Amino acid sequence: MNQKRGVSRRKFMGGVATALTYAGMKPALELVGAPAQRPARPAGYVKISNNENPYGPSQGVRGAMTKAFEESHMYIGANGITEAIATHHGLETDNILLGAGSTETLKTIDDAFLQGGGNIVGAEPTYEVTYRYLTNTHAEGNIIPLTSDYRHDLHAMADAVNYGTRFVYVCNPNNPTGTIVSDAEIQDFLDHVPENMIVVIDEAYHHFVEDPAYSSAIKYVKEGRNVIVTRTFSKVYGIAGLRLGYGIAKPELISRMRPFNLGSINVIAKSAGVQALDEPETEARVIQLNNSIKKRVIGQLGDLGYEVIPSETNFFMVGIGRDIDPVRRAFQERNVEIGRRFPPMTEHLRISVGTEAEMDRFMEVWNEVMGPADSQAAAGA
Amino acid sequence: MNQKRGVSRRKFMGGVATALTYAGMKPALELVGAPAQRPARPAGYVKISNNENPYGPSQGVRGAMTKAFEESHMYIGANGITEAIATHHGLETDNILLGAGSTETLKTIDDAFLQGGGNIVGAEPTYEVTYRYLTNTHAEGNIIPLTSDYRHDLHAMADAVNYGTRFVYVCNPNNPTGTIVSDAEIQDFLDHVPENMIVVIDEAYHHFVEDPAYSSAIKYVKEGRNVIVTRTFSKVYGIAGLRLGYGIAKPELISRMRPFNLGSINVIAKSAGVQALDEPETEARVIQLNNSIKKRVIGQLGDLGYEVIPSETNFFMVGIGRDIDPVRRAFQERNVEIGRRFPPMTEHLRISVGTEAEMDRFMEVWNEVMGPADSQAAAGA
Repeated sequence: MNQKRGVSRRKFMGGVATALTYAGMKPALELVGAPAQRPARPAGYVKISNNENPYGPSQGVRGAMTKAFEESHMYIGANGITEAIATHHGLETDNILLGAGSTETLKTIDDAFLQGGGNIVGAEPTYEVTYRYLTNTHAEGNIIPLTSDYRHDLHAMADAVNYGTRFVYVCNPNNPTGTIVSDAEIQDFLDHVPENMIVVIDEAYHHFVEDPAYSSAIKYVKEGRNVIVTRTFSKVYGIAGLRLGYGIAKPELISRMRPFNLGSINVIAKSAGVQALDEPETEARVIQLNNSIKKRVIGQLGDLGYEVIPSETNFFMVGIGRDIDPVRRAFQERNVEIGRRFPPMTEHLRISVGTEAEMDRFMEVWNEVMGPADSQAAAGA
Repeated sequence: MNQKRGVSRRKFMGGVATALTYAGMKPALELVGAPAQRPARPAGYVKISNNENPYGPSQGVRGAMTKAFEESHMYIGANGITEAIATHHGLETDNILLGAGSTETLKTIDDAFLQGGGNIVGAEPTYEVTYRYLTNTHAEGNIIPLTSDYRHDLHAMADAVNYGTRFVYVCNPNNPTGTIVSDAEIQDFLDHVPENMIVVIDEAYHHFVEDPAYSSAIKYVKEGRNVIVTRTFSKVYGIAGLRLGYGIAKPELISRMRPFNLGSINVIAKSAGVQALDEPETEARVIQLNNSIKKRVIGQLGDLGYEVIPSETNFFMVGIGRDIDPVRRAFQERNVEIGRRFPPMTEHLRISVGTEAEMDRFMEVWNEVMGPADSQAAAGA
């Protein structure tokens, strides 16, 4: 068993790391623009492309959603969500800024702090929404490649902060690599950037982390530091489609962000969120399922000789030693939708962790597409 | 019966018009800031303060909402809404930009067209969301008072357009006055502003209009003019709490707006919207109920000697000849919540049209608060 999990960071580091070169910041254009056309989905279609929670909201949450129908014609309803979030974290309501997913909170941060330009320091590849809105404000990205073990290079990022830097963006755990930076590294980083530098720490995948070296950065908000933590209900709580997220910061920072925030959250999401926070057992079940299924599949891929980046999230990246596009197409033709391209990591597939059955189907298609004897990717095997 | 409806514009014009002076643009601060605390609502509480549809979504729409629960864990779902809206108007999908209520669309318009400042020409009082975001872009409001009959002064607005003007905002019907400008007036206005001037026409209350002189401005979009029409599902469709609205414009304008738009609409709202557009009978019933109840109450107030501004919407304004604040408080103490203050019209109450029963209670409280023999407001009686 240990061996199956044994895709250790150390073993992994020597692998395809040289494939990672800085290819410049490319806004994720496919994420912008007209709404994607939903593909017709035949029975058995497996969508493990967007890091969604495959279980959806619990019966309790669905009950809260249905109850909220009674307020769906009104502008104000179920606004207990801000209080519920604040209580959940041991904070005050003026520490919380709601958004339509953490996406809105990240857009608000761009809009609020990049007026008139400047730059942000961030990693690549990472969650691109922060970079997506740079064009609007004529700001620039000061983008630092990940380390050879696919983690944020916090030393290089601290060095990259300059007089034009308005904030630093750290996605922890990082999307799309699934890696973390430790609490000690964050602490060290915060001590090395100027005290007034705003550090945004995106904790969308917080709940799935098992590594004890990791810790949420909310404690730095409580210390009064210039840290903004973003969170979402889209992952462990399984309501991505309802659009609910939030930012956590000291009141002075929240006040600067608020005028740029629409924060017009629908009543169904608010009610679902309040209930979801009240169901720690559902949360624990989702985490347990995700992490056990993830370990099993990573073990299977390891047994086949593939290198998987150690993941602390509900997705993982697997290196295949060649361009991923033909492989993605082959999966799609078999009705298995896997993650998109994340340059410069064009030889890594990002796989979201689905249900047991979905991951069985995924492995079936893997063997079909990649060939049982295909060991071309297994550079380290 | 005719007499009850007979609060004609002509009779009305000579009334309290002199009370309307230009008091400068005041951002509606109570709309910004932390989410409002929901008052504890005892049984029988009447909320006729926010121009909400008191009937809520139909059974059919509720069914569509429940069905969408199955997609609530996913990022993409039910995106047929853009197609449904386009088809509904005889337009293409690239004419449509979704938003979380028309509020988001109006914020997007500010963000997209006011980068670097400039000014917008608009009326006062009107729906303030367009002015609310001016501060973010360091733009200015070039604000023109309403005419003496509480309508947009399109002649003065056309004259106010200058080289710094980025767009003109016309709320038609206007909130909070409930008045319209005619199609002929809009046509004349469009012909008098520079051809490249963007004219935003907010048609949130479009469905309730009965005056045959009125027409939607969507036809000007179809003509290729620089007109942006905004619409919402919050009024006639009764799903304000779900947050769904949209902008309609030629593709070139939509393309300029899209990068500034979050457009992250929840799946419940999308599904509800598609179903609502497919229920013209529900729409007709809501309009019929609203307009008949409105006429009845306006007639009752007229019989008591009060002047009501002729309304083409689901709310109306009634002049009371003195500051409204003590009256609003007296209503609130009796659990009837009526519209807020709309400077400079500080002697007019804005009343949303509720259900029959709600408006019966409203009239009961009116008689109690204002006194049956109170004729101080009936300047023209």
